[in-house]
Amino acid sequence: MKHATRIADLGCEVVEEILAAAKSWKRQPHRKHLEGKVLGLVFFNPSLRTRASFEAVMARGGGSAIMIEAGSESWKLEHRVGAVMNGECAEHLREAVPVLSRYVDALGVRSFSTDGNDEEDCRDALMRAFRKYATVPTLNLESAREHPCQGLADLMTIEEQFGATRCLPVLLTWAPHIKPLPKAVPNSFLLTAAMRGCEIRIAHPPGFELHREIIGEAHAYAEAAGGSISFFCEQERALQDVCVVYAKAWGPSTSRERVNDADSPHADWMLSARQMAGAAKDAIFLHCLPVRRNVEVADEVLDGEWSRVVDEAENRFHVQRALLHWLLN
Amino acid sequence: MKHATRIADLGCEVVEEILAAAKSWKRQPHRKHLEGKVLGLVFFNPSLRTRASFEAVMARGGGSAIMIEAGSESWKLEHRVGAVMNGECAEHLREAVPVLSRYVDALGVRSFSTDGNDEEDCRDALMRAFRKYATVPTLNLESAREHPCQGLADLMTIEEQFGATRCLPVLLTWAPHIKPLPKAVPNSFLLTAAMRGCEIRIAHPPGFELHREIIGEAHAYAEAAGGSISFFCEQERALQDVCVVYAKAWGPSTSRERVNDADSPHADWMLSARQMAGAAKDAIFLHCLPVRRNVEVADEVLDGEWSRVVDEAENRFHVQRALLHWLLN
Amino acid sequence: MKHATRIADLGCEVVEEILAAAKSWKRQPHRKHLEGKVLGLVFFNPSLRTRASFEAVMARGGGSAIMIEAGSESWKLEHRVGAVMNGECAEHLREAVPVLSRYVDALGVRSFSTDGNDEEDCRDALMRAFRKYATVPTLNLESAREHPCQGLADLMTIEEQFGATRCLPVLLTWAPHIKPLPKAVPNSFLLTAAMRGCEIRIAHPPGFELHREIIGEAHAYAEAAGGSISFFCEQERALQDVCVVYAKAWGPSTSRERVNDADSPHADWMLSARQMAGAAKDAIFLHCLPVRRNVEVADEVLDGEWSRVVDEAENRFHVQRALLHWLLN
Repeated sequence: MKHATRIADLGCEVVEEILAAAKSWKRQPHRKHLEGKVLGLVFFNPSLRTRASFEAVMARGGGSAIMIEAGSESWKLEHRVGAVMNGECAEHLREAVPVLSRYVDALGVRSFSTDGNDEEDCRDALMRAFRKYATVPTLNLESAREHPCQGLADLMTIEEQFGATRCLPVLLTWAPHIKPLPKAVPNSFLLTAAMRGCEIRIAHPPGFELHREIIGEAHAYAEAAGGSISFFCEQERALQDVCVVYAKAWGPSTSRERVNDADSPHADWMLSARQMAGAAKDAIFLHCLPVRRNVEVADEVLDGEWSRVVDEAENRFHVQRALLHWLLN
Repeated sequence: MKHATRIADLGCEVVEEILAAAKSWKRQPHRKHLEGKVLGLVFFNPSLRTRASFEAVMARGGGSAIMIEAGSESWKLEHRVGAVMNGECAEHLREAVPVLSRYVDALGVRSFSTDGNDEEDCRDALMRAFRKYATVPTLNLESAREHPCQGLADLMTIEEQFGATRCLPVLLTWAPHIKPLPKAVPNSFLLTAAMRGCEIRIAHPPGFELHREIIGEAHAYAEAAGGSISFFCEQERALQDVCVVYAKAWGPSTSRERVNDADSPHADWMLSARQMAGAAKDAIFLHCLPVRRNVEVADEVLDGEWSRVVDEAENRFHVQRALLHWLLN
Repeated sequence: MKHATRIADLGCEVVEEILAAAKSWKRQPHRKHLEGKVLGLVFFNPSLRTRASFEAVMARGGGSAIMIEAGSESWKLEHRVGAVMNGECAEHLREAVPVLSRYVDALGVRSFSTDGNDEEDCRDALMRAFRKYATVPTLNLESAREHPCQGLADLMTIEEQFGATRCLPVLLTWAPHIKPLPKAVPNSFLLTAAMRGCEIRIAHPPGFELHREIIGEAHAYAEAAGGSISFFCEQERALQDVCVVYAKAWGPSTSRERVNDADSPHADWMLSARQMAGAAKDAIFLHCLPVRRNVEVADEVLDGEWSRVVDEAENRFHVQRALLHWLLN
C-alpha cells in the first residue's frame, strides 16, 4: 500500500511525477480525478490552508473530505503501546485508526511537535502509529517531523519561476518568532529541495541546528541529484546571489525548556528589504504561512515584488491533487 | 467583480431580481444552480441558520461549502495594516484572504461587532478587509454593520404575505435582552425595507438610536422607492395598525461600557399578545432568530398565529441561493 | 412520518429488514442510495465513529451531511417549555428544530445524559423535543436513553459471525471506568438483542442496575422473539459458554452524586484473557468504542482473536446506510 507520511515514502521519481502532474493540471479546467473518493482528515492542531485546500481538492475532484478535530469534536487519542488509559485520552489510535480506515479511502493526519524535543520529533511516533494501524493509504498534513505537501508546493513554486532547479541557489533562513516553532516545514523544504538538486544554503543562529538525521537524509538526496547543502550562522553572506529566499521560524535544537528566550531573540534576523537587496536581482521570497508580519518578515517583503507566498499556498492545492491521485490509484 | 458585503453592493434592481428568483425557485424542485462551485465560509462567531442554510444551498445546488472556524480550528486573524504581529494573531488577512481566494469561487464572512462602538461598526473594517484582499466575490454572513442575507429573507417573507410592499406599514421594535447586541440585523431590515418602499416605523427607548449613517442611507432608499421612515420612543403608538412587527434586541447607541444596564432595562418592551393586539388584524410577527423566549418576546407571540419566524428562517435558504447564483454568474 | 429515536420506533420487522439490507449491501459496491439527500447532524457531545460514519454514508450514497456543533460553533440550545431564557442558552429547540427541518431531509441528534439521573435519562427529554418539533424524520445518534445505531451494528456483527441469533447466549458485562458513563449503549444492546431472540445474560456489581423500564421493554421483546434475559452479580458464572462477550462501562443506578467511587471500583471486572477463557471456544468480543485500554478491557483481549470491535464499528456504516434508506424512502 502507498503512503505519504514523509518525503522518503515518495522518492525522487514520484516527486518528479507529482510536480509534473501538478504543473500540467494547474493550466487545465478541474477534472473529476477523485470521483467517489472519501478522504478522512484528522486534526490535532489548527489549520487554514491545509483544511481548505484539501476540502477544495476533494470537492473539485468529485470526492468528499471528512474533517475530524481530535480532542474537541471527537475524543482525545492515546498512541502509547500498553498504556493504562486512566487519564485524559478516551480512545487509542489502535482502535480509532483501523475504524476510520473502514469508512474512508485515505487518511490524513495533522499533528505538530508537542514539546520541541528534536529526537522525539524525528521519530514521529504519532504519524508512524497512524501509518502502522491504518488499512488505507495515509498522508502527512504536517507531523512533528515533516510537512511533505508543503515541501512539494515550495518546489513547484520555485520551478514555475526558474524552470530547472539543479544547482539553483536557494536559501532557507531562520526567522525570529514569539515562540519556538516546530521544524517540520524547514525539514521538508530541505529534503525536497535536496531531491530536486538545488544548491541549498541554510542560515540560522547558533543553537538552532536542524536534526542530524534530517541533514543526513538531505545530503544523500543532494548527492544523488547533483546538488549541495551548506550552512551559515549569519544571514548576509548566505543571501548573496540566491534566487530563492525561504524564511521560516523554528525553535532551538535543544529542548525548549532549557532555552532562556529573550522577547525576540535575534530580532535582526527578521527579513526586510535591506536583506533582500543582497539576493539575486530576480530572487523570489517564499514562506509557508501563516507568517507573523513585522516579526518574522517585514511588510515590505511580503507586499513587495519578491513575494510568491500566495502562489506557493495556491500550489498546495495542485500538488495535493496530484499526490492524492497518485496515492489512490 | 460582484460583491455582497452590504445592501448597497446590490442596489434596488438586484434586490428585486433576487427576491423574484427566490420566490419563484421556492415553488420548484431543487436545481443544480451551483454545479461544481465551491464556497468558502469563514466564521469569527457562532452560527446555526447561516451555516446550515448555506451548506444546504451548496449541497442542493450541486456545489460544496468549506467551513472555516477562525481562531479555533484555524489561526486567529489580524486585519490592522502595519501591525507588528507579536500577539495572539498568527496570521494576517492580507495573506489568509488571497490564499482562500485561490481555493474557492466565493468567500463569505461572519464577524460580529466586538466592542459595540457604533462608529467602528459602521466602518465595518474586517468585512472591508476581506473584500479588499479577496480575488473572488465576497459575501456578508453578518458583519459589524449589516446582515444583508437576513434583510433579504425578511422582505421575502413580508412579500409572500402581503404581495407589494410599497407603503406597507412595518414596525421595527427594539426588544430587551440580557446583553447589548450588535445592530447589523436592525440595520439590514431598515435598509432593505426602505429599498422596497415600506412605510417604516422604528421604536426604541431613548439612547438606542441606530447610526445616523445607516438612517441617512435608508432615507435615500425610501425616498427613491416612495416609502417613509418615522421614529417612536414608545411601542404602543408605533404598533397601531402595522402589518409587520419585527422585534429585535440591540445595544445602546453610545459605547457599551458607559451604559449602566439594570438586569433587564425596559423589560416592558418585551413583545406579548397585549402589544400585538394593537397591530393590524392580519399582522405578522418576524424575528431573525435566535430569540430569547420570555425575555425579548413572549411564548404566546412566537407560538401564536402572528409568527412567521420559521418561514423567515427558511427564506434564508431561498434568498441565499438566488444571491449566490447572481454572485457567481 | 418515520422516526428512529429509539428501537421501539423501528419494531421487530423493520430491525430485521435493516439488518438484512445492511448485510447484503456490505458485499456490494457503493450505490447512490441517498442521491441529493441532505442530512443534518446536531452534536451536543463529542463523536468520532458517528460523525465519520454518517458523513461517509452520505458521501458514498450521493448525498451530503451538515454537521452542527451545538454550543460551540452554534448557539447553546434550551429545551424546557416556558423557560425564561435569561441564562446561557441563546436559542430554543422550539425554533432551532423547525428551522433546521426546512433545510434538511432528516435530522440526527447526539445528546448524552448530563447528570446520570436514570429517571431523567429514560424520559429522554431532549431527544423527544427534537422529535416533537421536527417536521422531518429524526434520528438518534446516542441520546440519554438509547443508541439504536449502535445496537443495530452490534447485532449485525453477531449475526455475521453466528448466523441466527435465536437463543444464542450473549453476555453484557459491566466494566470499570474512571467515571460513571451513560447507559444508552447497554440499553440499546439489551433491547436489540432481545428483539433478535438472544439468550441474554447481564452481569454487573450491585448498584449498577439498568432502568426497570428498559428491562421491562426488553423482556417483552425477548418473550415475543423466543429469547430470555437473566441477571448475574459476578462475571465468572455469567461468562460460562457464552458466544458473545459485550463489555461496557456504565454508571451506578442511583444518582452519581450519592456514590462514593473509589479510584477504580470493581477493578477486577476489567475483562482479560483469564475471563475470556471461560466463554465458549469460538466466542467473540464486542465493545462499542471508545474503550479505555487496560481500564475497561485488557490489551490482550482487544488485540486477541476474540475481538470484533473494528468490524462492529465498520458495521455502523452499513446499518446506518440501511436505516437512512428506510427513513428517507
